[in-house]
Amino acid sequence: MNYRLTAKVVGISLLTEAGLLLIPLLVAFLYHESVVGFAITIALLLLCGGILVRLKIHSREIYAREGFAAVALTWVLLSAFGALPFVLEGAIPNYFDAFFETVSGFTTTGASILTDVEAVPRGLIFWRSFTHWIGGMGVLVFIMAILPLSEQQSMHIMRAEVPGPQVSKLVPKLRSTAAILYRIYIFLTLIETGLLLLGGMSLFDALVHAFGTAGTGGFGIWNTSVGYYNSAYIDVVIGVFMVLFAMNFNLYFFLLLRQWRSFFKNEELHWFLGIVTASTLLIAANIHALFPNFLQSLRYAFFQVSSIISTTGYATTDFSLWPQFSRCILILLMFIGGCAGSTGGGIKVSRCILLVKSVAREMHQLLHPRSMRKLTLEGKPVPDATIHSTLVFFAAYMVVLIASVLLVSLDGVDFTSTFTAVLSCLSNIGPGLDAVGPAGNFSIFSNANTLLLSLDMLLGRLEIFPMLLLFTAFKKRG
Amino acid sequence: MNYRLTAKVVGISLLTEAGLLLIPLLVAFLYHESVVGFAITIALLLLCGGILVRLKIHSREIYAREGFAAVALTWVLLSAFGALPFVLEGAIPNYFDAFFETVSGFTTTGASILTDVEAVPRGLIFWRSFTHWIGGMGVLVFIMAILPLSEQQSMHIMRAEVPGPQVSKLVPKLRSTAAILYRIYIFLTLIETGLLLLGGMSLFDALVHAFGTAGTGGFGIWNTSVGYYNSAYIDVVIGVFMVLFAMNFNLYFFLLLRQWRSFFKNEELHWFLGIVTASTLLIAANIHALFPNFLQSLRYAFFQVSSIISTTGYATTDFSLWPQFSRCILILLMFIGGCAGSTGGGIKVSRCILLVKSVAREMHQLLHPRSMRKLTLEGKPVPDATIHSTLVFFAAYMVVLIASVLLVSLDGVDFTSTFTAVLSCLSNIGPGLDAVGPAGNFSIFSNANTLLLSLDMLLGRLEIFPMLLLFTAFKKRG
Repeated sequence: MNYRLTAKVVGISLLTEAGLLLIPLLVAFLYHESVVGFAITIALLLLCGGILVRLKIHSREIYAREGFAAVALTWVLLSAFGALPFVLEGAIPNYFDAFFETVSGFTTTGASILTDVEAVPRGLIFWRSFTHWIGGMGVLVFIMAILPLSEQQSMHIMRAEVPGPQVSKLVPKLRSTAAILYRIYIFLTLIETGLLLLGGMSLFDALVHAFGTAGTGGFGIWNTSVGYYNSAYIDVVIGVFMVLFAMNFNLYFFLLLRQWRSFFKNEELHWFLGIVTASTLLIAANIHALFPNFLQSLRYAFFQVSSIISTTGYATTDFSLWPQFSRCILILLMFIGGCAGSTGGGIKVSRCILLVKSVAREMHQLLHPRSMRKLTLEGKPVPDATIHSTLVFFAAYMVVLIASVLLVSLDGVDFTSTFTAVLSCLSNIGPGLDAVGPAGNFSIFSNANTLLLSLDMLLGRLEIFPMLLLFTAFKKRG
Repeated sequence: MNYRLTAKVVGISLLTEAGLLLIPLLVAFLYHESVVGFAITIALLLLCGGILVRLKIHSREIYAREGFAAVALTWVLLSAFGALPFVLEGAIPNYFDAFFETVSGFTTTGASILTDVEAVPRGLIFWRSFTHWIGGMGVLVFIMAILPLSEQQSMHIMRAEVPGPQVSKLVPKLRSTAAILYRIYIFLTLIETGLLLLGGMSLFDALVHAFGTAGTGGFGIWNTSVGYYNSAYIDVVIGVFMVLFAMNFNLYFFLLLRQWRSFFKNEELHWFLGIVTASTLLIAANIHALFPNFLQSLRYAFFQVSSIISTTGYATTDFSLWPQFSRCILILLMFIGGCAGSTGGGIKVSRCILLVKSVAREMHQLLHPRSMRKLTLEGKPVPDATIHSTLVFFAAYMVVLIASVLLVSLDGVDFTSTFTAVLSCLSNIGPGLDAVGPAGNFSIFSNANTLLLSLDMLLGRLEIFPMLLLFTAFKKRG
């Protein structure tokens, strides 16, 4: 294990966070709020980060282990420091809760322990939503885009931080790939901000909701989430952008290159849009009695489907009160999540396709024991190793889910709330059902389980293995 | 597809069922109850079975497809005919409900739609529990034990009907293997019956409960299940025998051969007993406040853990009212189920071991990309094909579970009841929690979902693929 190099990468991340914190500090200043919390946090980050980056590096070698360790440690520490302003300003006095809220931000979950978000100062609200935007594309991918790292170094970090079964380079150099991805990300965020401004939102509201959508996070400003605006226009803008941000970013690169065929023939996209359409229609039919006309039920159904499958978690109504069938569709979407290479969480659409195709192939194999049918995705045969990793990922996901439900159940909250709280955190969605539904929040859990759910969010965002490895990486020789 | 041979195997099964129905007919006669329902059913079985076995066979060739089709069709038809006595005698007027109850019997689930089991005549109660005993070891394994089939024919049937990731022959000939397994099964059933008689049960009660335990089914005689007897002796006898019947039957063969080492070194057994012990202690600690002393809570905890992990489903108290943590442990046990090669359902302990080991190996592989660590079970390396099948089985299990929960949720029953009802059926347990808990029953579901849950029980008992293939087998050329 190359401890020094790992520590140095973490140090750079801390300094980066110090820089990023200047923006919410400025916001707080503009709104005449206290900036002490931000200032102290920035000072601490500069101190710790400064020490770490000055470490003498004996070797520039970086392997998978260092990549995983650097990514996992960075995410934990950014959240640990990022939680300080909430505590220092007294908005969230309990540090466990503040840590949960910040992890929820960086992992783009959007689950909140706040019972009254409208009472929180503007600077902190901005920071809370800004963490979504930072976490959506990845902290270290950001650093890769601005710092010169070797290809080998970058690949190990990229593999650990970017979601999906495979990492694809858009251009030969990973650094350029990261820069292109960030440019697309900024461009889409700006367009959404503009469209929200046109819908009558203030600049602050528009930015916060654009951050929340871009990172597929879901933190808002109002206790009733996006439902506060009660505007069909805003519902449609945010609804459509949630779908856009849950699509593989490589697709936008294809559009830039005018490779229309690669865009429209994308198998994962077909499945994703198919699932969104089918779920919207089924839920709209199921809830039509709750709304004055079918168009209205379609509007609310689409927004919620888009919000849950993209793992954003915004709400325009309390879907926890919907009929059981609609609730169960939403739970199914919580498992599926967005596309690979998007800012969405969950198992990812492409992994679900591989799972279903593996089951179909197994059936074929049982009937024709001597056949050697290859499994294909996007028209190309999928390597056995990728199928195996996908299946193991699914197993690991379920093991973590079941183990967490078991531990969280110690708090004695009812099963539906416990189960959906864990699933929602693990898939980085935000709200669950019943006690943790859009009208509830995560303050009902004990400190120990607040910490466990924070871990689940990190496990979900980094796709299980980097976080699990953090517990074992330091034990082993290397 | 060799339709004629498949039909002939099904025909033999129907004739066998006609023969087996003579026993409950005799019981009904002894209790001076109506035997008309049994008589008509036997006549119909003789007619249909008789026609099928007279089919001219052009080819004796049997492949995987014929094996799966014969097993799946047999199970569906035995249940379809086996349901008739309940309807004809008026005990269960709705045929869907009667079909559910019979599938629940043959698949050794023990889920019931009866709201008052104590009102059902003795002959039908005996038949209901007898189906557990028949289904536990497998209907076609029984036929294999008594009829001369070729090795190749037997293997395809054995593979489709016997639970677990791998089929192992105890002796070179499969027919002898089947006969040995049935002898062990009968022997253990007789011992339990004897011990229950010693505990003061009547012969009828003792037989019914021995059948329910042996098949790990769970049908009883009383609305309060085994709790009716309120006897620590009976709790311990049934509790211990549920564990014994959830163990791999090959282990008993090792005992017969005095291969103590093979018995005591069995890895799956260690895990299984470890899980039983740990769960019992955790639940006993969690529920101790509900009982006068720790010994009492230990007694109730052990019985319930043994009942759920063995997928029997007997209850000595309403565990649905236990604290959330205990409820969640029981849900976890519902997933795990018994050992491979036992009469228990669920995913099976050995598959769970393989899943956990696969996750551990993936972590190792990520840290050491060039390592080629082999996965071992029972001290032997596991072939990659077996690991792959296990992972795919798990994926298929979860896909079926989630899809079923979605469809069953259309009935609008609360999520916990819906989820545990499906899980309980798929793992062949019997009761779930809340509305389908020990104090509730499955009569709350619509006819369509009663049918769907019946299908889930069959999917669970035949380990998913034979049933799924039934839907595709007839479409394809062969």
